[in-house]
Amino acid sequence: MTFLYKANLVRGAEWARLFAERAPDLPFRLWPDIGDPHAVRYLVAWQPPDDIATTFPNLELVFSVGAGVDQFDITKLPPHVPLIRMLEPGITDRMVEYACMSVLALHRDLVQFIGQQRAQVWRELPATYTAERRVGVMGLGLLGQALLERLKSFGFPLLGWNRSPRSIAGVTCHAGADALPDFLGQTDILVCLLPLTSETRGILDAKLFARLPRGARLLNVGRGGHLVEADLIAALDSGVLSSAVLDVAEPEPVPAGHPFWSHPRILLTPHIASTTKPETAVDYVLDTIARHRRGEPLPGRVDRDRGY
Amino acid sequence: MTFLYKANLVRGAEWARLFAERAPDLPFRLWPDIGDPHAVRYLVAWQPPDDIATTFPNLELVFSVGAGVDQFDITKLPPHVPLIRMLEPGITDRMVEYACMSVLALHRDLVQFIGQQRAQVWRELPATYTAERRVGVMGLGLLGQALLERLKSFGFPLLGWNRSPRSIAGVTCHAGADALPDFLGQTDILVCLLPLTSETRGILDAKLFARLPRGARLLNVGRGGHLVEADLIAALDSGVLSSAVLDVAEPEPVPAGHPFWSHPRILLTPHIASTTKPETAVDYVLDTIARHRRGEPLPGRVDRDRGY
Repeated sequence: MTFLYKANLVRGAEWARLFAERAPDLPFRLWPDIGDPHAVRYLVAWQPPDDIATTFPNLELVFSVGAGVDQFDITKLPPHVPLIRMLEPGITDRMVEYACMSVLALHRDLVQFIGQQRAQVWRELPATYTAERRVGVMGLGLLGQALLERLKSFGFPLLGWNRSPRSIAGVTCHAGADALPDFLGQTDILVCLLPLTSETRGILDAKLFARLPRGARLLNVGRGGHLVEADLIAALDSGVLSSAVLDVAEPEPVPAGHPFWSHPRILLTPHIASTTKPETAVDYVLDTIARHRRGEPLPGRVDRDRGY
Repeated sequence: MTFLYKANLVRGAEWARLFAERAPDLPFRLWPDIGDPHAVRYLVAWQPPDDIATTFPNLELVFSVGAGVDQFDITKLPPHVPLIRMLEPGITDRMVEYACMSVLALHRDLVQFIGQQRAQVWRELPATYTAERRVGVMGLGLLGQALLERLKSFGFPLLGWNRSPRSIAGVTCHAGADALPDFLGQTDILVCLLPLTSETRGILDAKLFARLPRGARLLNVGRGGHLVEADLIAALDSGVLSSAVLDVAEPEPVPAGHPFWSHPRILLTPHIASTTKPETAVDYVLDTIARHRRGEPLPGRVDRDRGY
């Protein structure tokens, strides 16, 4: 009975150390050193191997090493094997830090000030106070809820939008496609924390931007596939949006010469908002395995129809 | 009996509107339209006129329009006229926003990522978690205390240093010059929120930087005069410090060609961290005037010996 890890190898070494300490009876292997493929019962992967069903006939659980599963081709996973999202608290903490930093940066015109520094311009910009800056979060899962909770102390009016209804104290929540225009019309800083599915691919497009108040700001910490890149550039150039912070793109790395590198109203980081923290992820994975063995429900189990 | 305003004229128009609404019986004038100088009882200023004592013989109170009074030449103010610092909540909120954004930016390597974006480099950097990133705040007045309070939810170990002893729940507080090396030795992100006095001028120098853990990070939201600029550049170039966010300099604006504009490890903003908010400042000023008329103590009164 083997646990197989197929993702970033530097962090993999840390997983190996933690498994040896916390689950000494469960053999741990780092891809590509898979050992006997028939012994592999558990797999954690960023991108699983293509021939997963035939290579590992005795798989019982597959974990995504990240919070999303969009990088998985779900159709290639055996239907009886649960696919589990990484709901460990380390991811949440890091995402809240990064997203909170970025919301404050968008609020305080940091993208504009970075451009002024480069141009050696010392100029104050008109102040907008948090009470007049409405922050709207798309995607009210664990990450979206944790971010809204952290943003409360800053005094921003807070809104949320989700596919299915949610209720969060102090946050005006909207649900479903019909409620999207109303949500967007009240959102000065839009944060995308949606899962990437066939329904949400390309959702950040010209039509959506046009529903935001003119000069709104965008933070994309979802996936590159949520964003229609050409529509973002056009919206920034025409003043529909005034700035954007992007941590994701499609493809990654962003190709040389792409406008995301050089656009004066874009702050781009290399998909570093949040990564799984081995220390807490190993506990989550071992807890999920224990629940599975006891036949209990699995909190991070992906609904394959819904796609998250 | 006149109230005279001598500072930024755009915000001055807002003060005039608020005074007309909230203190219709107190004539309000915008510098240089001073009217009868003998009628001026109250002055709010960024920099007061040089000949203040002779020009306005009936002055009763002088307010700094900012949180600091270092830009005042206290020796030129008549000794019997109280000098009042701006302790209004709008300044605090804005400072906490900006400083919190900057602490998160220093924590999450944003200065380095801005450089990578410019160089079109897509590269992750090693992650440090908040539990291992100690934030130390120099200056535990209203602003420093409010910042530490806001930082608590992020999980940073928090330290404070102040001239006189302070006690803040959840913060390891150090006091006085003797305790400074111990405080610095445990500080990975150093925030300067000190008042600028003869004792604190030039305090951020090579000797202080050398006491920080190697590769520490600096946020200066105090005054440009706190920092020995050449020492900062040398510390960044040698790796003693790894990055800095600066909102202040001496002089301001920063001159053309100055290394602050172009240094790859400096993020510079044009003294915008916090400005007085007319809405709340007018209430504070009117409340202080009422207290003065009733002969009560004045909370923001500057101790001229101490310099703040």
